[in-house]
Amino acid sequence: MINEELIRHLKAARGQFVSGEELSRLLGVSRTAIWKHIEELRQAGYRVEAVRRAGYRLVAAPDRLYPVELQDGLATKRFGREAVYFDAIASTQNEAHRRAEAGAPEGLVVIADVQTGGRGRLGRSWHSPPETGIWMSLVLRPDVPLPRVPQLTLVAAVSLADTLAACTGLSVGIKWPNDLLAGGRKVCGILTELAAEADRVHYVILGIGLNVNQTEEDFPPELRARAGSLAMAAGRSFSRVALAQRMLEGLEADYDDYLQKGFAPFKRRWEARAVSLGQRVVARTPGGDFVGIARGIDDDGALLLEQANGALRKIYSADLDL
Amino acid sequence: MINEELIRHLKAARGQFVSGEELSRLLGVSRTAIWKHIEELRQAGYRVEAVRRAGYRLVAAPDRLYPVELQDGLATKRFGREAVYFDAIASTQNEAHRRAEAGAPEGLVVIADVQTGGRGRLGRSWHSPPETGIWMSLVLRPDVPLPRVPQLTLVAAVSLADTLAACTGLSVGIKWPNDLLAGGRKVCGILTELAAEADRVHYVILGIGLNVNQTEEDFPPELRARAGSLAMAAGRSFSRVALAQRMLEGLEADYDDYLQKGFAPFKRRWEARAVSLGQRVVARTPGGDFVGIARGIDDDGALLLEQANGALRKIYSADLDL
Repeated sequence: MINEELIRHLKAARGQFVSGEELSRLLGVSRTAIWKHIEELRQAGYRVEAVRRAGYRLVAAPDRLYPVELQDGLATKRFGREAVYFDAIASTQNEAHRRAEAGAPEGLVVIADVQTGGRGRLGRSWHSPPETGIWMSLVLRPDVPLPRVPQLTLVAAVSLADTLAACTGLSVGIKWPNDLLAGGRKVCGILTELAAEADRVHYVILGIGLNVNQTEEDFPPELRARAGSLAMAAGRSFSRVALAQRMLEGLEADYDDYLQKGFAPFKRRWEARAVSLGQRVVARTPGGDFVGIARGIDDDGALLLEQANGALRKIYSADLDL
Repeated sequence: MINEELIRHLKAARGQFVSGEELSRLLGVSRTAIWKHIEELRQAGYRVEAVRRAGYRLVAAPDRLYPVELQDGLATKRFGREAVYFDAIASTQNEAHRRAEAGAPEGLVVIADVQTGGRGRLGRSWHSPPETGIWMSLVLRPDVPLPRVPQLTLVAAVSLADTLAACTGLSVGIKWPNDLLAGGRKVCGILTELAAEADRVHYVILGIGLNVNQTEEDFPPELRARAGSLAMAAGRSFSRVALAQRMLEGLEADYDDYLQKGFAPFKRRWEARAVSLGQRVVARTPGGDFVGIARGIDDDGALLLEQANGALRKIYSADLDL
């Protein structure tokens, strides 16, 4: 457990020393307790210099998605203002479901450094090793009809693609429905889950898995041909904290826009980033494989596939081979 | 706990006596245990005659929705073939969610004689007193795209309306989206809830609350103007077990039809039973009240409301005042 108040006081000193006596007074605990808290910060990855008579000085914060770091410089009103962090958890998605059921507000994020049972679309697993990625689940409570929920996945994909392109300089494409590609490989997956009644959405959990700083060796061999990271595509590493902040800011702005203005502008933005439009693709669906030219998406979020006979088939659930 | 095997043996005798010795042999327990089980059956509402030397004879089974009763004469393949019963539970819906999450198969029904926290649409409560109604939640695992799920509510409404009309001789109407009316009052509500990801439905829980044998006094005063029962509308009481069986049979047949043939035939059947079509209605939605002529439903299950300016507005979530 890190003492967030202590971190905030050390940060407020902007690299200057704060005496143990003052920290003791500010936190209302003994100087021995301060020393103990400083040790805990070091365990958590903070570099803190301690100098007799001068006190303590924060040299560097770790690039870990602790709420106190995520929220330091986060320019959102709701998204991420409540955040819970786990060094390791089975699945941030499951934890977010539990909290949403229990009444968690819109904007809560659940983040973990490692997921031991990370989940992807269609019941698949998601590889979530430590110290390298952003594994994050966001609670939404959109007042939209159930048939519109798949649009949220596409809105999120567009929003994240724009943010990642802006933060990294990479060309980021979208493969239907919501895989983000950079350097020809999948770097980000989005899992949208929901609980609803037929005429009311109770909540949506937007799960985001972003590979940030992995090297090729960090991926299991069977994933290497298709999976990559931002670092692999860009040839440099990125701050996970800064990326998560920009992602949440972009998502909040785009989500609010979507609720106010509807799907049309996002449909255009989505189609502009889509890597498959106009191309021949194979859609592998539960009901069989369909071959055709990807022509766009419709208001259900379905992919419009032009088949050999010219007919447009709506694809709701599939894996796409490009 | 009732001994279902004992009930089946007594029923197999078709009103004749079965000796305690034979029952003891059939169940592989002592005659004292048989005597104890018979007492339990009586506690559970079974009328069993015991005659020295002759043995035991089932005089009448109670009209209670025990699985052994529900399944005796139930002509379905899946719906109700697994059933769990509670004398009292907070909400059959919540229990069905828990079981569906844990992998319960399609067709499982959860039934209670009393619900202490019965739920209706849009977070409302559902009055569920003992011995009078059918409070039942059915687990479905339909392979349909998320935007089609609201259709399931309408399919269920049509199916139940047809079954109830056939079983009671009453004229049964549907008020959008899924209230069933008889004798001018609401007699049945349907609550469709689901867990899904954007491109895959995990499960749907179809909750059915049917007022069967209530008298007017069984309803709280604030409900009396709008709520009624089949018995109030028909002037006679009905067997809850027989109704539940016919409902499950109808639902299974219609559900399978819907999955094979799609929504079009059900849309027509729904519109034929709708009480509001062509009439001026007020749709009270979260976004305000809308007045217009109810013209029909669309493939999203939305109500098409013709407003004063002639424009059609799609209503996804509302209470309708006729």
